[in-house]
Amino acid sequence: MQLTFIQGLELLGTFAFAVSGATAAINKSYDIIGLLALAFVTAIGGGTIRDLLIGATPVAWLTDELTNSAIIAAAIIAALFVSYVKKLQNWLNVFDAIGLGLFTITGINKGVAVGLPIPICVALGVITGSFGGLLRDVISGEQPFLFTREVYAVASMAGGILYILLGLHTSLPADIIQSVSVTVIVAVRLFGLHYNWHLPRIRQ
Amino acid sequence: MQLTFIQGLELLGTFAFAVSGATAAINKSYDIIGLLALAFVTAIGGGTIRDLLIGATPVAWLTDELTNSAIIAAAIIAALFVSYVKKLQNWLNVFDAIGLGLFTITGINKGVAVGLPIPICVALGVITGSFGGLLRDVISGEQPFLFTREVYAVASMAGGILYILLGLHTSLPADIIQSVSVTVIVAVRLFGLHYNWHLPRIRQ
Amino acid sequence: MQLTFIQGLELLGTFAFAVSGATAAINKSYDIIGLLALAFVTAIGGGTIRDLLIGATPVAWLTDELTNSAIIAAAIIAALFVSYVKKLQNWLNVFDAIGLGLFTITGINKGVAVGLPIPICVALGVITGSFGGLLRDVISGEQPFLFTREVYAVASMAGGILYILLGLHTSLPADIIQSVSVTVIVAVRLFGLHYNWHLPRIRQ
Repeated sequence: MQLTFIQGLELLGTFAFAVSGATAAINKSYDIIGLLALAFVTAIGGGTIRDLLIGATPVAWLTDELTNSAIIAAAIIAALFVSYVKKLQNWLNVFDAIGLGLFTITGINKGVAVGLPIPICVALGVITGSFGGLLRDVISGEQPFLFTREVYAVASMAGGILYILLGLHTSLPADIIQSVSVTVIVAVRLFGLHYNWHLPRIRQ
Repeated sequence: MQLTFIQGLELLGTFAFAVSGATAAINKSYDIIGLLALAFVTAIGGGTIRDLLIGATPVAWLTDELTNSAIIAAAIIAALFVSYVKKLQNWLNVFDAIGLGLFTITGINKGVAVGLPIPICVALGVITGSFGGLLRDVISGEQPFLFTREVYAVASMAGGILYILLGLHTSLPADIIQSVSVTVIVAVRLFGLHYNWHLPRIRQ
Repeated sequence: MQLTFIQGLELLGTFAFAVSGATAAINKSYDIIGLLALAFVTAIGGGTIRDLLIGATPVAWLTDELTNSAIIAAAIIAALFVSYVKKLQNWLNVFDAIGLGLFTITGINKGVAVGLPIPICVALGVITGSFGGLLRDVISGEQPFLFTREVYAVASMAGGILYILLGLHTSLPADIIQSVSVTVIVAVRLFGLHYNWHLPRIRQ
C-alpha cells in the first residue's frame, strides 16, 4: 500500500485528534474503555456527524482500517507515555491543525458532492474538523472548549470560505486551492495558539 | 417568494427556538461559535434527530435557506440586543409555543408518511418539538429543563394525541384538525407557563 | 404471538436496561418525561447508534412494539415501586447482563450482515450493548460509568471476540456459538460485579 502525501498528513491529523481524546480520558482517570472511546469519538466524531447529516452511511471510518489503526495506536501511545506525549504538545498542535485543515476541506467537498448550498458546505467542513472535540468535551462532562477558549472553528471557517471563494472566482488548479486553504487554516490556528488569540465572548 | 401563513408562523417558531439557544450561549459567555452552534442545535436539533431516526437524509434543514437565515438572524439579534431581547421574553414564549405546536405536527406527519406505528409518530412529534432544547442543555452542561421544570413536552404530547384522535375519529378537514391541535399545544404550554404548572417529579 | 426463548430473554434484558434508565431519572427527581426519555435512551440508545452508523433506518426500535411496551412497563413499574425495585437489584443485574450479552451478538451480526471488517463488527456489538448507558449518563450529567466503574464493555468485548473466533475457527452450530458467547459475557459481567472487578484506570 502506497500512501500519498495527503493521506500521510491526514493520518498525522487523525493521530493528533485521537491523542487529544486519549489525553482527556487520562485526565479524567478513565479506564481503557474510556481511553479508546474518547480517542475514537474525538478523531472520527466530526466526520461521523457530517456523514449522518448527509446520509452517507455506513459512515466512512467503519471501513477505514488505516484511520482506525492510527486511532488505536494513538490511544495506546498516549496511555503508555503520558508525560512524554505532553512534552511533544507543540508537535501535536501542529498535526492537530493540519488535521483541522484537511478535514475541513474533506467536509466541504462531501457537501458539494451531494449538491448542498455553499454556506452549508462550509458548515459541514467546520463540523467535520471540530465537532469531534465538541463530542469529547460533552461526553467527559467538560465545558466545550470549542465555544470558549480558542480560535479553532473560526480558523476552519476562514479557510473553508477561502476555499469556496478561490474555487468560484479563480481558475487555479484544485490542489493549489486546497493547499492554500489548508495552509491558511493551519496558520490561523497556530498563530492563534501562539499569540493566545481568543474570540470575544458574548456577555450580558 | 410568497410565504404562507403557516410558513410565517414556523419561521417565528424557529426564530424563538434559536433565540433560546443563543441566550443559553450568552449566559455561558460562549464566543460567536458557541452562539451560532447553540442557536442552530436548539432550532434544528429535534427535527434532525427525527430525520436521522427515520432515515430522511440529507436532513431537512441543510437545504432550508429560510430556516437557516432565521436562525442566524436570531443569534445575531440575541447577541447584539441581549437586554432588549429579555424584555420581549413574553413574546418569545408565545412564538416558542407556536413553534412547539407546529413542529410537533410536522414530526407526526413525517412519521405517518413513512408508515410508523401511531404511538411512535406521536413520539416523533414530541422529539421534533422538544429535543432541540434537550441537546442545547446537554451540550452546555445544564440539567435538561425538559425533564424537570415545565409543562413542555407534555403539551406537545397532549396536542399530538389529540391530532391523531381527531384524524382517526372525525371527518374534519386536515387543516382544521391541525389548527385545533396546535392551538391546544400553545394553550397548554402558555397556561402552564403563566400558572407555573409542573409535572410531579418522581422521588424515592 | 409466540415468543421464542431468546426473544423472551431479550425482553428481560430490555426491561432491565430501561429500569436502569428509569432509576437514573428517579435519582435525579426528573418528571415523567425524563423518566420515559431516560428509560428509552438507555434501552434503545446503543442499538440506535449502531443502526445510524450503518445506515439501517428507520432504526429498529421504531417498529418494535414489544420492545417499546417493555420499556414503558419498566418505566412505570420503576416509578411506582422504587424501593421494591431496588430490592430486586440482583435480579436486574442478571437480566441486564443477559441483555448485554444478547445485544452484543445482535450488534455483531448486523455488522457482519453489511460486510464490515471484523474488529468493527465487535465494536458495533460493544456499542449496541453498552452505549445506551453512556447516553443515559451524558444526558443526565453524570460521569460515564462505562469509562470508570465496572467490567461492563470489556465483558461485551471479550464475548464478542470469542463469538467471532468460534465462528471462524470451529464448525460448531451457530446457536451453540451464540449461547457460549452470551454465557461468557454474562459470566464475566456478573463475576466482575460480585468480586468488584475494575479495569485499571489510567493515571498520569
